[in-house]
Amino acid sequence: MFREKIKVLDCTIRDGGLINNHYFTDEFVRAVYQALSKSGIDYMEFGYRSSRDLFPPEDYGAWKYCDDEKIRKIVDGIESDIKISIMVDSYRVKEQEFTPTSESPVDMIRAATYVKDIDSSIDLIKKCHELGYETTCNIMAVSREIEPDIVEALRQLADSPVDIVYVVDSFGALYCEQIEYLVKLYKEHLPGKEIGVHCHNNQQLAFGNTIEGIIHDANYLDGSLNGIGRGPGNCCLELLVGFLKNPKFDLTPILKVIQDYMLPMKKEIEWGYMIPYLITGILNEHPRSAIAYRKTPDKDKYAEFYEQMSDAQE
Amino acid sequence: MFREKIKVLDCTIRDGGLINNHYFTDEFVRAVYQALSKSGIDYMEFGYRSSRDLFPPEDYGAWKYCDDEKIRKIVDGIESDIKISIMVDSYRVKEQEFTPTSESPVDMIRAATYVKDIDSSIDLIKKCHELGYETTCNIMAVSREIEPDIVEALRQLADSPVDIVYVVDSFGALYCEQIEYLVKLYKEHLPGKEIGVHCHNNQQLAFGNTIEGIIHDANYLDGSLNGIGRGPGNCCLELLVGFLKNPKFDLTPILKVIQDYMLPMKKEIEWGYMIPYLITGILNEHPRSAIAYRKTPDKDKYAEFYEQMSDAQE
Repeated sequence: MFREKIKVLDCTIRDGGLINNHYFTDEFVRAVYQALSKSGIDYMEFGYRSSRDLFPPEDYGAWKYCDDEKIRKIVDGIESDIKISIMVDSYRVKEQEFTPTSESPVDMIRAATYVKDIDSSIDLIKKCHELGYETTCNIMAVSREIEPDIVEALRQLADSPVDIVYVVDSFGALYCEQIEYLVKLYKEHLPGKEIGVHCHNNQQLAFGNTIEGIIHDANYLDGSLNGIGRGPGNCCLELLVGFLKNPKFDLTPILKVIQDYMLPMKKEIEWGYMIPYLITGILNEHPRSAIAYRKTPDKDKYAEFYEQMSDAQE
Repeated sequence: MFREKIKVLDCTIRDGGLINNHYFTDEFVRAVYQALSKSGIDYMEFGYRSSRDLFPPEDYGAWKYCDDEKIRKIVDGIESDIKISIMVDSYRVKEQEFTPTSESPVDMIRAATYVKDIDSSIDLIKKCHELGYETTCNIMAVSREIEPDIVEALRQLADSPVDIVYVVDSFGALYCEQIEYLVKLYKEHLPGKEIGVHCHNNQQLAFGNTIEGIIHDANYLDGSLNGIGRGPGNCCLELLVGFLKNPKFDLTPILKVIQDYMLPMKKEIEWGYMIPYLITGILNEHPRSAIAYRKTPDKDKYAEFYEQMSDAQE
């Protein structure tokens, strides 16, 4: 599946950081940066730029804030063409600093938003665009929104300077025909913009749905090393690169960093396909109840969790 | 996705038996039978009916042979409408006994074959059909066959009494557009027959590809509990049942048997998505080299295995 416009973004540090409050060692982040650079991945996302007023630094690691100088320290001395992105929760913006891109190691700012917060998202996108950044809008939890609200948000985005708009299956609730429908809906209402897909693996469909996005002309594709990410995690980067078969990508450095770092990490922190996440996925629910359940002694009582969650929906 | 003609077949004991030489305790097989019956699953596959001449009984458990009386012992006293299937490697047939279906607990015999052995497969199908069994032909390793050979096999099957023909992605090498193509090809050349899909999870696509089969009118769908099966395993039954949302199915007994039996089993025997199987999948190779690699001290040296396997294809 060769298409020059396809860009792959790795969100290992950003989405993985949701599991461990963004505490990753500098050694690990540097190893990931080096591996992704060698593999020809287009973008690496380092984390969030969050407000220290809203998220006090004693509770979070460096990748909750992604200060320019911190990123610079990591990438220093590594030869790389990879672009750097950071994410901002555009409904929790307060006093974060953004310098002009010419003075920053960051190339792209991704505004994560719910449909209801689209206005503040567009404010942020305009500001970042003026500072010279590439921008995306990642509309989360789209499986829970009604179509007129989605279309209204897309129309506003069509009139904004945003470069890329993502279909985000936050709850891992969608299957291929729904992804096809949404990608086409986004394309219809966003002439001239690029479409991205960000999928979660609750139902082991993150990679299959990403392929579906590719088929229908989404060109920005998110993945993470061995699928690391909150709950069931994301589309595995190794699957995506193995599939794309684009000679610009090299799978070997990705496999190497997985064996050296992700395997030991899997013994410390948990992610991937597990039945509580399947349950929140098929019920189109936020994974938070499954995450909480996995921290109790009942964590493997799947049938009980299913009954409890189903009853709660009635 | 409600379609009355859809039938779900569980191959836990049969495909799972490939990992442990078909040694499962009677207690486990009975628990699976009970759970699947309660869940409304249409078929349960117990194993292979293999020749004891070709496969000496000192090397294999009971489910390599699936004697009628052994099956009867398991199902005795359990209320159930589930149909029972067994598989026969139709290129390794020698002196197996098949009594008329009226005298057997077995309802369906599935003939597994490579394209080159289609003649002996059809011989077996005819014999089983005359004895009153439902029959399927599972054409394996179809990702490595050229189209005229597949079409020739399908034409022969069209003239045979076989009821269902399966698209089998033995190497977990296919993605959705290829599944669509094959299901349509099978339908075109098999008027009046039903189509089935049996997918492997090398690339985390077993479930996504099964959905693709459903969309294109494959009505026989294979899954297994928590995806158990050789190497990366199969489509997870729990995903399939969660997706189908057909009121005849109940997910709870499936989740219960997974938590009670499959979780402890996962500590004893290994299956599921692992990078060596991803590698054989993207290279369209039999998983045997990955299975062998997983038994060495180098089992997690993914990059080396990838280089080694890629070099061997050059």
